[in-house]
Amino acid sequence: MKLATYQNQTRDGQLLVVSRDLRRAVAVPHIAANLQAALDNWVQAEPKLQEVYAALNQGEVAGEFAFDQARCHSPLPRAYQWADGSAYLNHVELVRKARGAEVPASFYTDPLMYQGGSDAFLPPRAGIPLREAAWGLDFEGEVAVITGDVPQGADAAECAKHIRLLLLVNDVTLRNLIPNELAKGFGFFQSKPATAFSPVAVTPDELGDAWQDGKVHLPLLVDYNGAFYGKPNAGVEMQFNFPQLVAHVSKTRELVAGSIIGSGTISNQDRSVGSCCLAEQRMIEIIDTGAAITPFMKLGDSVRIEMKDASGASIFGAIEQTVVQHG
Amino acid sequence: MKLATYQNQTRDGQLLVVSRDLRRAVAVPHIAANLQAALDNWVQAEPKLQEVYAALNQGEVAGEFAFDQARCHSPLPRAYQWADGSAYLNHVELVRKARGAEVPASFYTDPLMYQGGSDAFLPPRAGIPLREAAWGLDFEGEVAVITGDVPQGADAAECAKHIRLLLLVNDVTLRNLIPNELAKGFGFFQSKPATAFSPVAVTPDELGDAWQDGKVHLPLLVDYNGAFYGKPNAGVEMQFNFPQLVAHVSKTRELVAGSIIGSGTISNQDRSVGSCCLAEQRMIEIIDTGAAITPFMKLGDSVRIEMKDASGASIFGAIEQTVVQHG
Repeated sequence: MKLATYQNQTRDGQLLVVSRDLRRAVAVPHIAANLQAALDNWVQAEPKLQEVYAALNQGEVAGEFAFDQARCHSPLPRAYQWADGSAYLNHVELVRKARGAEVPASFYTDPLMYQGGSDAFLPPRAGIPLREAAWGLDFEGEVAVITGDVPQGADAAECAKHIRLLLLVNDVTLRNLIPNELAKGFGFFQSKPATAFSPVAVTPDELGDAWQDGKVHLPLLVDYNGAFYGKPNAGVEMQFNFPQLVAHVSKTRELVAGSIIGSGTISNQDRSVGSCCLAEQRMIEIIDTGAAITPFMKLGDSVRIEMKDASGASIFGAIEQTVVQHG
Repeated sequence: MKLATYQNQTRDGQLLVVSRDLRRAVAVPHIAANLQAALDNWVQAEPKLQEVYAALNQGEVAGEFAFDQARCHSPLPRAYQWADGSAYLNHVELVRKARGAEVPASFYTDPLMYQGGSDAFLPPRAGIPLREAAWGLDFEGEVAVITGDVPQGADAAECAKHIRLLLLVNDVTLRNLIPNELAKGFGFFQSKPATAFSPVAVTPDELGDAWQDGKVHLPLLVDYNGAFYGKPNAGVEMQFNFPQLVAHVSKTRELVAGSIIGSGTISNQDRSVGSCCLAEQRMIEIIDTGAAITPFMKLGDSVRIEMKDASGASIFGAIEQTVVQHG
């Protein structure tokens, strides 16, 4: 099942059921006003949404219209929880290697994760507002899950059952604010501005065989300024799968329905597949040549993040964002 | 104006207007179903809520009932944003001194703040669930504000205008999980389980002269296991006031209505006023004697957090929590 949220006059937008081919959609206010409401009441809402989805894929349904990704907000325009892992350790290894440091052994058994701000996400086709170019704007291509209610202390096997939806992420990051912020010891804060998500969120069954072992075994396709930038496979070298990441979050607290848990920047050791963020290219340049060459994003730069199934069809629609002047 | 949220069959509870003396309350579903809904639409909702509040304080209103703090949830049972500062640098100075380290000069000009999880708060009279005593459970008494919508880049003067409500906080912390977590570099995560807030949230005018310069100039009263533990004044030695803390959050992103921004553990240099967390007593013990004596909370230990006005009346009601076995 594929779901999206159109921007409207409300803070949480209008929930839509979207056809598998992303061409048509229908609003379902009789089932749930918005995606958070559906997740709050998933046991009741999910079969009704699935019924609409089946009908939409089989033929015309009353009230359907042409689906326009440009009218979408984030599937959850605001959420109660956004926690982002760093499960692709190749990325961490490159960051450390570039500054001549070792990766601590614990990083291979204990997930790295930061608490994100979730009150205001960017729509998938909205500009990325930039106030200061010196802050070092970067994108990060990721996959995330949206969970149902997860009790405190749930293990990975139980957490797997609470994964409701999958979606793509642009974890926008202000790189030059990171060193000072991490030196303060309390983690990312100003260095992590509003995040963007794909136009469409999908149930795991939509991925077929590509959803295995709690991982998405497909390449994430990233274009930068209209040219190929990366296609690392999200199922390769993911040190902690999604159930393990969710279990890390729920170790000391419950999670409520609608919690979004991210994978971290996807990164493969195979350099021929490129990268999902500018920082990683810069690390490779530092390792290879001693200096970073690739600049961070400036006004007018654009990024496109998408994932396609084996037949070449877009699964989640595409995040397409251009850097714009703030205010 | 004083507002509270009764637990009911919904995730966001039932919004109540509470009399100034905290004795009576009335539900206001015709104005807003819950506090988040009121904050989402504050310009329309606030005058109507104020009207009910005035009537309630003046005499009997239809549907009023005896207000019971034990039936309250957090004013916002779940929120879109919870960011907590560390504005009382005496606390930071003690932590550093106990480990023989200096406080960096930047800490006096650049607020320390961490991103908290906001999806599931504890009710003010609920037990604090503990899975492992070895995690080192501690309370932290604080004050927080709830904001309206705050644009990105708003300065402190503008942020002051967006402060809607004030409330008290028990920022529950798992002290023994902190060292490993901070060593990983991404900040607090598992060491910050669910937070609790006071039964009642109040508009700043309720504090009268005690609300000045964006600070609350009253002692926070903390009892531990039924005995006096601390009464530091929240208006003394607060290095960054609330408008400055909100401006820190909004430097690189907007905030949506219902965002909660905390002060950090209240702490005064005057040791006769005691502390608002166990960790601080332990730091003082380490500085004075070389070893921490005060243990962290164990099953059955209880904390009470309250604030009274000049006449001795409770402003926010009291957080009263006892440690209980999880599960």
